[in-house]
Amino acid sequence: MQIAFVVYPGMTALDAIGPYELLRSMPDAEVRFVAAEPGPIVTDSGVLILHASHSFDETPTPDIVLVPGGSTGTVGAMNDQKLLDWLRAAHPATTCTTSVCSGALILAAAGLLKDVPATTHWVCQDVLGSMGAIPQRDKRIVVSGKIATAAGVSAGIDLALWLIGEIHGREQAELSQLVIEYDPRPPYDAGHPSKVTPEFLASAKTRMLAQAQAAG
Amino acid sequence: MQIAFVVYPGMTALDAIGPYELLRSMPDAEVRFVAAEPGPIVTDSGVLILHASHSFDETPTPDIVLVPGGSTGTVGAMNDQKLLDWLRAAHPATTCTTSVCSGALILAAAGLLKDVPATTHWVCQDVLGSMGAIPQRDKRIVVSGKIATAAGVSAGIDLALWLIGEIHGREQAELSQLVIEYDPRPPYDAGHPSKVTPEFLASAKTRMLAQAQAAG
Repeated sequence: MQIAFVVYPGMTALDAIGPYELLRSMPDAEVRFVAAEPGPIVTDSGVLILHASHSFDETPTPDIVLVPGGSTGTVGAMNDQKLLDWLRAAHPATTCTTSVCSGALILAAAGLLKDVPATTHWVCQDVLGSMGAIPQRDKRIVVSGKIATAAGVSAGIDLALWLIGEIHGREQAELSQLVIEYDPRPPYDAGHPSKVTPEFLASAKTRMLAQAQAAG
Repeated sequence: MQIAFVVYPGMTALDAIGPYELLRSMPDAEVRFVAAEPGPIVTDSGVLILHASHSFDETPTPDIVLVPGGSTGTVGAMNDQKLLDWLRAAHPATTCTTSVCSGALILAAAGLLKDVPATTHWVCQDVLGSMGAIPQRDKRIVVSGKIATAAGVSAGIDLALWLIGEIHGREQAELSQLVIEYDPRPPYDAGHPSKVTPEFLASAKTRMLAQAQAAG
């Protein structure tokens, strides 16, 4: 089973690395990081560099595709015709096509989310709706046929765990969960818009957009 | 505030990338990935490559150090004298020296955990004890003075969130949590040894050790 993580400049690393760390433990999993060409990819921090291990051309028929989001790189990826063409070509033969965070906007730009229920980072839900998808604002994972979308950044970990259960059953999912000791105990409880005040949410949105603009 | 993530061959990427994705959003944070020399580092999957952005020599006085674990690379790092010397030299001036997963064994190899309460991946707790630390088997984060250790892989995310709260207070921690939408809802509940049967745990241990040996 070939699992292709799309990588692009300005992506958010955890969107891909969270799911990767679970999915690679599946039996017979072959993971790869794909872009137009193999080589270094500068993520949205401007400091962390990941490598694309394979080109799109070398990866015509992945079983699973995962498209990460990116605080500075999403718009670029939404306008990257090679990336979008590859997604459109690969999708019909996948077992599951997935996105994390603003990666859903890239699936939408490829035309894969028209009238499809989907989720994304809370800050991107309106944009997702404007692109023709049907935003599911309070869902951490949304499964629509063989398209599965996750909410912001860390939600990719839950998505991957769900996916392992779908493909290999509960025991394999539980094993993978135990291996990465995924027994979350966050010391704060502000990880979803419903858990903070409207003022705090507005402030967070302002700061995120300012950071993305400063970096982008 | 300079935050140095140690990187080495055979490391587990999520151990570092989880905390990185939170810590980099702190005000005035400067993140860097450090090794003996800048350049590519092959992680424990053999596929994912990260880059060291800076050398140890360029990073003599980081404010925060984070040492990740690695399913195939921990032993190598425990015997890497340059890495250990750098840890010993940097530690006295840090605000906080931290590890995730089997990274605690590397701190121990550097002599920083003698008689220190600490945690690590559940599969490494006995080894940690044999190296002179005081294992805290059921703790996800253990804070001993300015040394903070986290349990396996995904526990680094909780560690980072705690650390942001310590340094910048609750509001900043909550903001960072909201930005990565860290509102975990794992679809299974097997992320800790206490949540599975002894037989399942033994099977998981066998499979992990076999994988590490096959890869290493």
